[in-house]
Amino acid sequence: MNKLLVENTDGGSVAVHVKNVIIGGKEKVVISGPCAVEDYDIMISIARKLKKLGVDIIRGGAFKPRTSPYSFQGLENEGLKILKKIGEEVGMPVISEIMDTRDVEGCYNYIDMIQIGSRNMYNYSLLKEVGKTNMPILLKRGMSATIEEWLYAAEYIMAEGNKSVVLCERGIRTFETYTRNTLDLNAVALIKERYRLPVIVDPSHGTGIRELVTRMSLAAITAGADGLEIESHIVPDEAMSDAAQTISMETLKTIIQNVKKLNIDFS
Amino acid sequence: MNKLLVENTDGGSVAVHVKNVIIGGKEKVVISGPCAVEDYDIMISIARKLKKLGVDIIRGGAFKPRTSPYSFQGLENEGLKILKKIGEEVGMPVISEIMDTRDVEGCYNYIDMIQIGSRNMYNYSLLKEVGKTNMPILLKRGMSATIEEWLYAAEYIMAEGNKSVVLCERGIRTFETYTRNTLDLNAVALIKERYRLPVIVDPSHGTGIRELVTRMSLAAITAGADGLEIESHIVPDEAMSDAAQTISMETLKTIIQNVKKLNIDFS
Amino acid sequence: MNKLLVENTDGGSVAVHVKNVIIGGKEKVVISGPCAVEDYDIMISIARKLKKLGVDIIRGGAFKPRTSPYSFQGLENEGLKILKKIGEEVGMPVISEIMDTRDVEGCYNYIDMIQIGSRNMYNYSLLKEVGKTNMPILLKRGMSATIEEWLYAAEYIMAEGNKSVVLCERGIRTFETYTRNTLDLNAVALIKERYRLPVIVDPSHGTGIRELVTRMSLAAITAGADGLEIESHIVPDEAMSDAAQTISMETLKTIIQNVKKLNIDFS
Amino acid sequence: MNKLLVENTDGGSVAVHVKNVIIGGKEKVVISGPCAVEDYDIMISIARKLKKLGVDIIRGGAFKPRTSPYSFQGLENEGLKILKKIGEEVGMPVISEIMDTRDVEGCYNYIDMIQIGSRNMYNYSLLKEVGKTNMPILLKRGMSATIEEWLYAAEYIMAEGNKSVVLCERGIRTFETYTRNTLDLNAVALIKERYRLPVIVDPSHGTGIRELVTRMSLAAITAGADGLEIESHIVPDEAMSDAAQTISMETLKTIIQNVKKLNIDFS
Repeated sequence: MNKLLVENTDGGSVAVHVKNVIIGGKEKVVISGPCAVEDYDIMISIARKLKKLGVDIIRGGAFKPRTSPYSFQGLENEGLKILKKIGEEVGMPVISEIMDTRDVEGCYNYIDMIQIGSRNMYNYSLLKEVGKTNMPILLKRGMSATIEEWLYAAEYIMAEGNKSVVLCERGIRTFETYTRNTLDLNAVALIKERYRLPVIVDPSHGTGIRELVTRMSLAAITAGADGLEIESHIVPDEAMSDAAQTISMETLKTIIQNVKKLNIDFS
Repeated sequence: MNKLLVENTDGGSVAVHVKNVIIGGKEKVVISGPCAVEDYDIMISIARKLKKLGVDIIRGGAFKPRTSPYSFQGLENEGLKILKKIGEEVGMPVISEIMDTRDVEGCYNYIDMIQIGSRNMYNYSLLKEVGKTNMPILLKRGMSATIEEWLYAAEYIMAEGNKSVVLCERGIRTFETYTRNTLDLNAVALIKERYRLPVIVDPSHGTGIRELVTRMSLAAITAGADGLEIESHIVPDEAMSDAAQTISMETLKTIIQNVKKLNIDFS
Repeated sequence: MNKLLVENTDGGSVAVHVKNVIIGGKEKVVISGPCAVEDYDIMISIARKLKKLGVDIIRGGAFKPRTSPYSFQGLENEGLKILKKIGEEVGMPVISEIMDTRDVEGCYNYIDMIQIGSRNMYNYSLLKEVGKTNMPILLKRGMSATIEEWLYAAEYIMAEGNKSVVLCERGIRTFETYTRNTLDLNAVALIKERYRLPVIVDPSHGTGIRELVTRMSLAAITAGADGLEIESHIVPDEAMSDAAQTISMETLKTIIQNVKKLNIDFS
Repeated sequence: MNKLLVENTDGGSVAVHVKNVIIGGKEKVVISGPCAVEDYDIMISIARKLKKLGVDIIRGGAFKPRTSPYSFQGLENEGLKILKKIGEEVGMPVISEIMDTRDVEGCYNYIDMIQIGSRNMYNYSLLKEVGKTNMPILLKRGMSATIEEWLYAAEYIMAEGNKSVVLCERGIRTFETYTRNTLDLNAVALIKERYRLPVIVDPSHGTGIRELVTRMSLAAITAGADGLEIESHIVPDEAMSDAAQTISMETLKTIIQNVKKLNIDFS
């Protein structure tokens, strides 16, 4: 893989701007919020807490890719509208997943960063479509994608002109069943050593176990991650999806405080 | 997974009709052709050979999902038009992969069966869209999809009203690197024992090695597969993609002759 | 891997003799019996049935490698003695697993073929030790061993002088959890095409599901396997281990009858 | 898995003593040295450097499990003797891998800690044998062992009476080929949260890439690891095995300095 856009051979980090937030700069970035946007009231109370804790970007799923067609599929456009309102009220950028090429154009009005989910990492039509926008893109690694395929997926977006791509490692599928996925921090270290796209880590999907989120958040930052995407909720056990891996506001507070204290310098 | 549409608890096989071809009936079905539609001349000469050998449906990729954005992406709509012309001239149904929800409607005019590729098995927007048509769908297993996720992907299509779904096992991603994928015939046996959707096997992607295609084709039929999808070419080494796993017309002839001789009865 | 002993470049099959049974010759070989030797009475009644059905070699575990140290570990030497007695009474060769280098020498008196289990495929001390004997060896593939590593394990035995090695594919560990393992028939086809060691298949561990054993047994033979190792019991549900994948004598009869009817000729 | 010895439900950490070194206590422990003991001169010069850098235990392979029987298999007993001499001269404990039950008793005279390698994690005869000693054991995770199987392997040792077991995560086998293995720090976090055996991490095998060792060493400690086992050499490129993942003394110095600076407190 020579001369790819993902390589940026001048050695500088290609920081990505999401409104006033910079991913890939000196400060570590925390994206947090519930798996799914449930309703305005819950969402605004979560958002106010997140703001107070120093979270940078609010996440909330509106279009939810679920294994079964009979599971809750998200509030869809209604969810995006709630997110937009929330973001404006608390003054924070918002991110949400888009799954259909036909929804890309419409989402500009509602969200500040587009998330490409793990299941759609190989959806090259979608990658090309978001590559034609000038929105920042969070590209999650496919659940069994090699690092090479993942980088090429970023290349699909960048080849269309959009250079604002942030990678997100979220655990890969292995034989291990104790944890939901195997968080691959090797991939993070490798990308920081050899590529210059910002990369963040999702320890929620990466472990699937609430008790492991703190340790793996800090390990991710130590390995070189530029930030974290963490599922949180004011009442984790009542989250409509992914409850087992969703952390409380108290745990999130501990993580953010510790992230600030970590001061690793590999140079 | 109780009471799903994929279960069809009355025990009968849900045969799927593609024009005059029946998949899931008594006769085994062979789908063959090159990985990619290259041009009309090559395609018509391949098609005439396939017809003579007793192949049932012609395959040819028009939209090609490739790991790199810089690899040949297929002839796209031009490829579909060539396929349509070929199909009419030789009098055989044609199948091709569709990757974008926006291309679903247009494809009715050109092809007789829609293929959902491995990379798009989790593309639920696409599954729902083809579920709204009355086209027969060939649903390839995601390269690391569990059998359960694959069946739920079929359920996504069927829940929208389209019951004409044929599954296609095409090898899964494992630690083994000698072969391109690990062909999972357990999955075929399991589906035939417990579910009633027709299931065919792609030994080309399932092995990635030309010399193994004959043996694995026959093993697949013996395990219970309702048919095969095999990449073939008149000059395999000149195929524009997947040459290493593409077989010649002579090998295809051997396979078809042997498939007819196999007469397994498990009852 | 050039010039290895496993390659046998003169193209002939290296048949392995186990008393009067030939593995890797024209006839397909069936090894069967319970997972563990439980007691003499059960074992002799199973053995008489197996003899009547045309099974070639009796299997029964005496040393049982179990995940937990608190699970039944086998009858050990007592089990080997029972096996010997059974073999003599019914006039059939017997095979059992040996796990410790210190047990290799002693086992000559009791069994006719040594099985190296999946967990010990990388136990090079044990491989070298059995390589110094002139006993036929059944070498099961490690649960996550690459084909290359497996062939090198055979090479470890052969490099010590013992050329009587039969490979046994028994399923590999993948992300799939519906089946116990993923039976890798690609590996069988590959070995038959490129190497000349006999290879048999264990569809019991390869699937973990009793209902799939018949289909996968026949698929294995069709892919080129020289024989089968199948767990069977007169009362499968009462087997002390691996009950879920153990088949009845009736099912075994069906398999053997169908194996004889299969007549695949790839030449 | 209830009431296992690995659980130690009183919540205290079971520190393991290797002469004057404590693994699982407050201080992080570093084990380092070359993959294989090559000769006395190289080994003593490495050992003196390691001592100066603050390494706690010297490693060096005498019995080397290699994929091919034709690769260098280690100096065997000669290697153990060199290790013993080195350890005495520099005044540090030494660790080496034992692969054969018959070598367990003899090794007492030469080494201070027995390493059970990844390939022998399922070698229950060997586990029982070292369980009968009172030597501290470093139990590496099998390359595709589940966390549960790994803990049960420790249980095999402990059930025989030897409670001095330290676990070592060394990367698992996945579909990813860019890195040699996928280092599973989830497993480390999980063991620290739910079990009380000390656990260390081997970032050399865990990545297979020298440039990633520093980042992953620190990430491992951050996730909770009690120490590290790192392959190092005075001239890494000349190491007789594993050169690509072996680091220099300078890199090791940086790692040790940074490990001391990390001060994570999750309580």
